[in-house]
Amino acid sequence: MKESLVNLKKTARTLYLLEHTQATISWDQETYMPEAGNEERSEQLALLEGIIHQKLTSPETGRLLAALGADDEKPEGKGDFPDEDKALIREMFRSYRRASRLPESLVTEMARQTGLAHTAWVNARKKADFSLFEENLSRIIELNREKAEKIGYKEHPYDALLDGYEPWMTASQVETVFGPLGEKLSDLVARIKAAGQPDVSFIEKNYPIDLQDSFGRSVIKEIGFPSDRGRLDLAAHPFTTTLGVNDVRITTRYHENLVLSGLFSNIHECGHALYELGVGKNIQGNILASGVSLGIHESQSRFWENMIGRSMPFWERYYPEFQKLFSKQTEGVSLDSFYKAVNQVVPSFIRVEADEVTYGLHIILRFELEKALLSGELEVSSLPGEWNRRTKELLGIVPKDDAEGVLQDVHWSAGLIGYFPTYSLGNLYAAQFMNSMKSDIPDFDSAIRDGRFDKILDWLRGNIHQYGMIYPADELCRRVTGENLNPEYFIDYLESKYDGVYGLRGN
Amino acid sequence: MKESLVNLKKTARTLYLLEHTQATISWDQETYMPEAGNEERSEQLALLEGIIHQKLTSPETGRLLAALGADDEKPEGKGDFPDEDKALIREMFRSYRRASRLPESLVTEMARQTGLAHTAWVNARKKADFSLFEENLSRIIELNREKAEKIGYKEHPYDALLDGYEPWMTASQVETVFGPLGEKLSDLVARIKAAGQPDVSFIEKNYPIDLQDSFGRSVIKEIGFPSDRGRLDLAAHPFTTTLGVNDVRITTRYHENLVLSGLFSNIHECGHALYELGVGKNIQGNILASGVSLGIHESQSRFWENMIGRSMPFWERYYPEFQKLFSKQTEGVSLDSFYKAVNQVVPSFIRVEADEVTYGLHIILRFELEKALLSGELEVSSLPGEWNRRTKELLGIVPKDDAEGVLQDVHWSAGLIGYFPTYSLGNLYAAQFMNSMKSDIPDFDSAIRDGRFDKILDWLRGNIHQYGMIYPADELCRRVTGENLNPEYFIDYLESKYDGVYGLRGN
Repeated sequence: MKESLVNLKKTARTLYLLEHTQATISWDQETYMPEAGNEERSEQLALLEGIIHQKLTSPETGRLLAALGADDEKPEGKGDFPDEDKALIREMFRSYRRASRLPESLVTEMARQTGLAHTAWVNARKKADFSLFEENLSRIIELNREKAEKIGYKEHPYDALLDGYEPWMTASQVETVFGPLGEKLSDLVARIKAAGQPDVSFIEKNYPIDLQDSFGRSVIKEIGFPSDRGRLDLAAHPFTTTLGVNDVRITTRYHENLVLSGLFSNIHECGHALYELGVGKNIQGNILASGVSLGIHESQSRFWENMIGRSMPFWERYYPEFQKLFSKQTEGVSLDSFYKAVNQVVPSFIRVEADEVTYGLHIILRFELEKALLSGELEVSSLPGEWNRRTKELLGIVPKDDAEGVLQDVHWSAGLIGYFPTYSLGNLYAAQFMNSMKSDIPDFDSAIRDGRFDKILDWLRGNIHQYGMIYPADELCRRVTGENLNPEYFIDYLESKYDGVYGLRGN
Repeated sequence: MKESLVNLKKTARTLYLLEHTQATISWDQETYMPEAGNEERSEQLALLEGIIHQKLTSPETGRLLAALGADDEKPEGKGDFPDEDKALIREMFRSYRRASRLPESLVTEMARQTGLAHTAWVNARKKADFSLFEENLSRIIELNREKAEKIGYKEHPYDALLDGYEPWMTASQVETVFGPLGEKLSDLVARIKAAGQPDVSFIEKNYPIDLQDSFGRSVIKEIGFPSDRGRLDLAAHPFTTTLGVNDVRITTRYHENLVLSGLFSNIHECGHALYELGVGKNIQGNILASGVSLGIHESQSRFWENMIGRSMPFWERYYPEFQKLFSKQTEGVSLDSFYKAVNQVVPSFIRVEADEVTYGLHIILRFELEKALLSGELEVSSLPGEWNRRTKELLGIVPKDDAEGVLQDVHWSAGLIGYFPTYSLGNLYAAQFMNSMKSDIPDFDSAIRDGRFDKILDWLRGNIHQYGMIYPADELCRRVTGENLNPEYFIDYLESKYDGVYGLRGN
């Protein structure tokens, strides 16, 4: 078994290096590549994808995993190895299983259909007419059903898809947390709606981009983003990508009249990057040296963005500097007014613009609909009506057309079913982690106020980052907090914070 | 045979895409990669190198080449195919032969020894003491001899090495042109030394880097560097690299008190890039879509840098703008004085700082010594003395120590023997091409003066660029100019130009 493990590690190392190579040329595509380079770059990416797939699904990999006793029942194998070795076997088995069980014909057909669907979706959205996308979506649901059957699952086909983004989690686990969450959030939103809204007009003024950039860079530097192990560049969409063990890059974009958008996006991506940069020495250089799931990853980005970046202590620290840089724009705006504006809650139709209270409701909507579509309980043709009905229930508003409603997200047209829950799981994990963190760091607020972010980052490294993918998300959660994922922590956090912002106890 | 060709083309396409992937992550390493990323990046590069080597030297590639009848006598194979297909077979055979004949042990040992040699060279150079590098160089010469024997050659082991950089050329061909060149250049240098030197003090003044950059960018844009198919970035050393059929990038660096260095480096690299960007549709996307040899490549960069960029018509066009941007620095400097300063000739010890007259002499020196070392006529221990003796003969000066002399170049420590001639061949090809160009473009000078560079670029594309690697350098030269490489064109060009600069006819 030992020799098989050594060889499996070699394969993992090759995959690790190839994936970083892929990440590098993909990063370049999004940042510096001249326009006309796109066609060949896509081919280079596809070629690397093929080489990785071939290496991952080779008979040799299968033999090594079998020799180590890894199977559906015991993905971590049957050897007596340390945790990080078992985890490596487990994750190699998971990847191998997912990749080798999908026939090439299905992969090709999915690529073809998503290509067509994307065009149809763009057009349908432009015309605000779901019927122009309906057939494409039906085909994509069908292919995802087929994909789920091929990969295999125990309870619900959704599980096989979710596992692609939130490894080892099942739909029923998501339901357990989303159930109480939905009710509580809807209730909180209703109470906030009844309260008065803060003045946010100053936020929409013009903020010079070079000043936004220098402010944004100084903030992430102080939080702990290391300039010798990472970069911040401009791209059309903000993202984080790992190019090497000591090379994690983030991107951002600035708009003159959206000063908060650029800033919080910098902090968000910095949170992702710090996670990737914090893996322990024992797993550096192998496939475990990454975030364990998209949900846990999102917990890191949203923790820094919302729980730190939109907190009062944070702005106690930074508002004086912000006000100095943007004196005209913030004239007469007190710290308290600024804080309230940063935390404004308004039910809206568009998920990507949602605040941290309403965000979860957008996700619950999508999760419910995806599950129903996949199981066949919901027909694709009935989707827009169902979308609008549930939006009304959850958020208290109704989209004026399909563009504002069911057609707003790109995900389904790209074939991504089972992805959405991870966004919301991130918030839940983050609040639960923060609760534990606060009992370990009694001066949490003043650490933020004084810019002693290393205290917080050290805690995250010691409790979460260093483990990379060693422990699956649910086990990690129990190790860090002593219990399973529990939405109460997030709800408590929101209740307490937004009472401060909106004075809810009076309502 | 047809099927073998189709399959060979598929292999070539894969290699092409992988090489561009390698170029992309290597470009990133030199430009934007954070410092700490270097260690893993080197491993990623080595992994890709291994994958490329494996693909190139696979038994399958050997079988396809054999089926096509490609061998040492007929590298282009025995099929009745169009020129570009024969060329593809020829170049695949050349690469296959070079890669498959080198045993892995030799490649590994070369990598190990150059690693050690580089450190030794840096140290020896710092201490200006050749004896600290002598043993390393001996080992490198030995390994290069072994390499030449494995690859095979007809006349001189040097041929096998030269072929790595100047495919299909032999040492005796180089001698044929370097012989007369050396004498004529030495004579010209002596006459220039006797003439008075222009005032160049204004060139060494401080020129703000942002203005250097905007001027340099405007020049290469006008020459024809396309911003949608390329980029110019900063790096420690200027270079050109091809990342895709529509993605060729150049780099530069600026120094405040070296305004000409940055500018001419931009033009030089732009010349390389235009060659790579100009390949014909019929070979785009395969391994022939690149420069055919380093010598021809250098002909393109040096043509734009020296023959255009250091010409009077060029500065008639650009000096007014230059003077406007840098009015203080160029106060009281006439166009004529500026032109003379740009073309100053001073025999110096350092090759990389040499002007276009003395440059060739530096190269001849290295070529002679490399050949003698390789054949054993010259002992490594006698190298410094021989270096100084020949420098005196060729340039009329003697280095004060080994750092200024035999230790100045990095090439030998990196294992590169046979590389130097290509630098000088570039000048010779460029002058010979220009002679043909001028008979096709009678208003050559005024085209430059008016910024109608498209006329010149179109000629280069039609006569040289479009063919990529279809014709070996010597055949290309005959096709373009009607004769073999002939150093007289370069000598005539220099005689005529430097008569204008230094008034030599009076001497």
